[in-house]
This record gives sequence, C-alpha cells and structure tokens, in this order.
Amino acid sequence: MSSQIGKGKIAIVGSGLVGSSWATIFASSGYEVQMYDISEKQLQTALILVEKNLRKLDEHGLQRGCISADEAILYVSTTTSLEEVMKDAIYVQESALEDVNFRIEFYKKLDQLAGPNTILASSTSTIPASKFTAGLVNKERCLIVHPVNPPLFLPLTELVPAPWTSQDTVDRAAEIMNSVKQQPVKLKKEILGFAVNRLQFALLAETWRLVADDVIGVNDIDLVMSAGLGPRYAFNGPCETVHLNAFGVKDYFKRYGNGATNVLNDMGSVPDFSDESVIQKLEDELEKKMATTNIREHQAEREVKLIEMAILKKRLNL
Amino acid sequence: MSSQIGKGKIAIVGSGLVGSSWATIFASSGYEVQMYDISEKQLQTALILVEKNLRKLDEHGLQRGCISADEAILYVSTTTSLEEVMKDAIYVQESALEDVNFRIEFYKKLDQLAGPNTILASSTSTIPASKFTAGLVNKERCLIVHPVNPPLFLPLTELVPAPWTSQDTVDRAAEIMNSVKQQPVKLKKEILGFAVNRLQFALLAETWRLVADDVIGVNDIDLVMSAGLGPRYAFNGPCETVHLNAFGVKDYFKRYGNGATNVLNDMGSVPDFSDESVIQKLEDELEKKMATTNIREHQAEREVKLIEMAILKKRLNL
Repeated sequence: MSSQIGKGKIAIVGSGLVGSSWATIFASSGYEVQMYDISEKQLQTALILVEKNLRKLDEHGLQRGCISADEAILYVSTTTSLEEVMKDAIYVQESALEDVNFRIEFYKKLDQLAGPNTILASSTSTIPASKFTAGLVNKERCLIVHPVNPPLFLPLTELVPAPWTSQDTVDRAAEIMNSVKQQPVKLKKEILGFAVNRLQFALLAETWRLVADDVIGVNDIDLVMSAGLGPRYAFNGPCETVHLNAFGVKDYFKRYGNGATNVLNDMGSVPDFSDESVIQKLEDELEKKMATTNIREHQAEREVKLIEMAILKKRLNL
Repeated sequence: MSSQIGKGKIAIVGSGLVGSSWATIFASSGYEVQMYDISEKQLQTALILVEKNLRKLDEHGLQRGCISADEAILYVSTTTSLEEVMKDAIYVQESALEDVNFRIEFYKKLDQLAGPNTILASSTSTIPASKFTAGLVNKERCLIVHPVNPPLFLPLTELVPAPWTSQDTVDRAAEIMNSVKQQPVKLKKEILGFAVNRLQFALLAETWRLVADDVIGVNDIDLVMSAGLGPRYAFNGPCETVHLNAFGVKDYFKRYGNGATNVLNDMGSVPDFSDESVIQKLEDELEKKMATTNIREHQAEREVKLIEMAILKKRLNL
C-alpha cells in the first residue's frame, strides 16, 4: 500500500491510548500505518479507537491531511509480529511500557529489525533516550518524540535527542511531525523531565506550596490559572507574555526583574509530594467536582473543551 | 444617579489603562462610576477609552450586566476632586502609581475621606497592602484587588488581605467582584507576589534557565506553552490537571511524585534576571515576530485572541 500513498510506512509499536492517538494522526495525514501489540484482542480494541478518533477529527474539521476518516482507516493495519511491523517502516513511534529495564531489552530487538534509515522515536515522558539506546547499532537514529495529552487536540510534541542522536535524525523527525501537523519543538540536549514536564512541575511545586501553606484554596489556585493566566498562555508562551506585558522583554526585566527575584527567593524548597495531609486537602476539593470514579467522563469533558479550542485556533490560523 | 441605578457608587481612583478597564467593568454592570485623576485632560482620554471599551464588550456580547454601552456610558462621570470621588462611594478601586512612598501618603488622604463602610481596594500587583495601610483608621477595610491584564477579557481577580483586613471586607469585595463577573479568588494571607505572579514567576524562572542553558530556543519554549500546556490550562488549573492526568490526584502523586521531585531537584537556583546575554537572546527572537516599536499593535493582536477565548468560554458556560 505504501506505493499508493507515497508517504511511507509508519510503525506504531504499542497500541494503548497514546499509540492509538499516534496511529490516528499518521493515518489522518495519509501515511500507511501498521500497529503492533502483543495481543490480537488489544489490537482490535485499538483499531476501533482509531476509527472513532478519525471520525471525531472529521466531525470537527480537524483532519491532519486532505483525506476522510473512511479513506484513512484503510491505511491502518495491525500485527502481533514485531518483524512485520518493522519491515519497510521509515519511522517507528514506540509507546510501550514506561520501564527502563523493559526498554533496554525491547530496543535491542527494535535495533535488530530497523532499516538503515529508520527513525526510532519513543513517546516516553519520563525516561531519557540515553538510558535505553546506548550501544545500539542504530543509536544515532533514536530519540524521544513526546506528545502532550490528548495528542489529537493538543498538537505539541517535544523532540529530545540522546547525546548520540544525529542532527539529521532530529531534523527528519521534525519534518515528519510537521507533515502530520504535530508542532515539533527541538530540545538541543537531553535533560530530566524534558521541557514540558519541567514547566509543569515548576508550576505544580509552587501550587503545592501555596496550598500546603494555606495561602489559597485548591479551587482558587486552579482558577488563577484557568480564568486568569491560562487563556493568555493558550496563545502566547512565557517569553512572549513578558515581552507583551511591558514595552518588550528588555523593559520587562528592567522593571520587574528585581521584584521577580524577590518573589522567587521567597518560595520554599522542593515540596514533599508524599505528604498525605496535602494530598488529602487536594483530593477533598477535587473529588467534589471531578470524582475519580467518573474520571473518564471528566477527561471526556476536558476533551470537548480542547476540541473547541482546536477549532478556534484553526479559525485564527494559529 | 445612584438611587436610579440602585447598585451604589464606585470610585475609580487613577484613570490609566487599568483604571479605565475597571470603570468599564463597573459601568457595564450597572454601577454608578466616578473616575478621579489629577488632570482633566487625562480624564477625557480615559472617558473616550471607557466608551470604546464598552462598545467593544457590546460588539462581542461580553457585557458584564444587562445594559448596553449607550446606557452604561451615562453612568460614568469624572472629577479632579478627591473629595468628590470619595463622596458616597461604597467601593474604591485605586489604580495609581506603583510606588510605596507615594501610596503611604495617598492612602492617608483616602482614609480621611472614606465613609464608615467604604472598601478601599488597590489594583497593585507588587506592593502588599500592609506596606501602605498600617495605622489607617479604616485599615480593616483595605485590601488588594488585583486583576490580570487585560481585565476586560481575562476576568480573574485576586483578593489579598493585609493582616488587619476584616473577613467581612474580603467577603464584600468578593461579592462585588462576582456582581461584575470578575472571578474573585481569595488569598487567606498576605504573601509576596500574591498568587498570580508567584505562578508566573515560577514558570518564568524555569523558562529563563532552559534558554540560558541552551536547552531549547525561545520560540520553542513559547510553543511548549502556547501549543501544548496553555490550551489545557485555559480550562483546568494545575490541581485539576494532575487529577485528570491520572486516576485522580492521589494516584498522580503516587505514580509521578518521585519523578517530579527528581526533576525539581535538577532545576537551578533563582536566575540572574539582569544577565544581558540571556536578555539579548530573548530579545533577538522576540523582536523578529513582535517588534517593540509596534508593541501596542501586538498587544491588540493578543486582545483579539483573548476576546475569541472569552466568547468561547461564555458559549461553553465557563
């Protein structure tokens, strides 16, 4: 089928929620997609999810390419054979277990089966590529390609090289991401937590401290973000924001640099995220509005809002 | 006029961009508004801006009450007399100079002119109320009511008490904010930077470090937020986000607490925001897309997007 499509074959290794999202994104863009998993049953579940996802993209005019869900689903096949999925793949998106020992062994297999130009991209959010690709024949074509959840409606993807990843690999992975409208950002070196989680955790740490120190309630600190800063960050990142909040970034730091330093010096140390009393405080408030027993429903509610946001951004050509 | 309107008189002290936004918000909600400033010319400029703002709210269906711009503008008067603006005011929103010595003297005047129930609210983002309200007769009715910029389309307002601010004052200020659809959050005690800037600065610090350490480019770190995390934060704050990113908040910290701690321990110390080489790096990239010479235009572009977001949120009943 790859000759018909002309875009090449993508191997989706691991067909859970993240893998199925990747399959959807690539198929919607007109790539030939093959999904691999260890069980036939899991693959059938995944295939149903991919079709549902493709129809959802169609419904909202958010396809990644020029083809319909009906056509895109024809590009998706499945296999329980690692040999088959790797055959002729130009790019492998692995979304398997977040376990470093499993990965070390698994990547040895992928390495043996990879073609001479195949890119091996991992969706992991927590394990740097250097921890499981050292010593591989194809190690210079291994990297992290980490999406944000839910990838279908939040197109950001961070590309994180290992020390031995070639620039050509990073550039080609970025091209492929651009070709599926998955906005790539390139980290220049490996760093713990990558960029997405470093920003999230910096914010989470101060949120935790403010709640733990009883400065503000859980709902109120959420509102500070969702009604205040969040809508602004949905369009402009932290650098653009300070630039726009003064007469440019130079003026910003001249005016507010000292104040920001004083505030940052006033913040506490890394919180103890195992403190049960703080977790209980968080849970008490969160359970009232989003019961964990219905978490899938609440996640679906969030998705509805993110779809609306994606439609808005498309309309604004963003 | 206050008897006709029935909502009472709001004194807007300081008629710059922030003061004019406040005047717009209160007038759009049906309050009688009087703006004070030291120059008649400034007040005329402000009045034109308020009318423009009111029409903008109308145009997008984002009025704060049930009245039109044509009607609302009739509720707005101006004066260069501090005595006049304070007369019969139930609530004073001060948006004057961000200078602590000026404020100490200025609040003595406001204190003398305040009625026995008048709330004295300051828009300051940087100076805690304890620094300029100690010793005032009406000090228990002083607090910070700090909006986010631009207040017309980002309704979040943080209420920060001084140690001597009464709970009744905070509650009444929150009620007034609710009555003008300006979402209030209540800080339980005074803290440097309040909540809005503490979150912003936590994020800014890590952004700065990543750029300074050459981990990621300026445009790319902005995209991490605007294409990835920001759209999510526009609907859900940091607590809701971790709750939804696992099977509830308890599960989140059990699974990711250790990882987050490791990442936070890997972050550097408070950055030196006066480092010219980093500022230059930021400026080089930002000037390409948002020249400081056209900053007003770029701020207006941001406003257009935030208006669309406000319309979307209204449609989703958020």
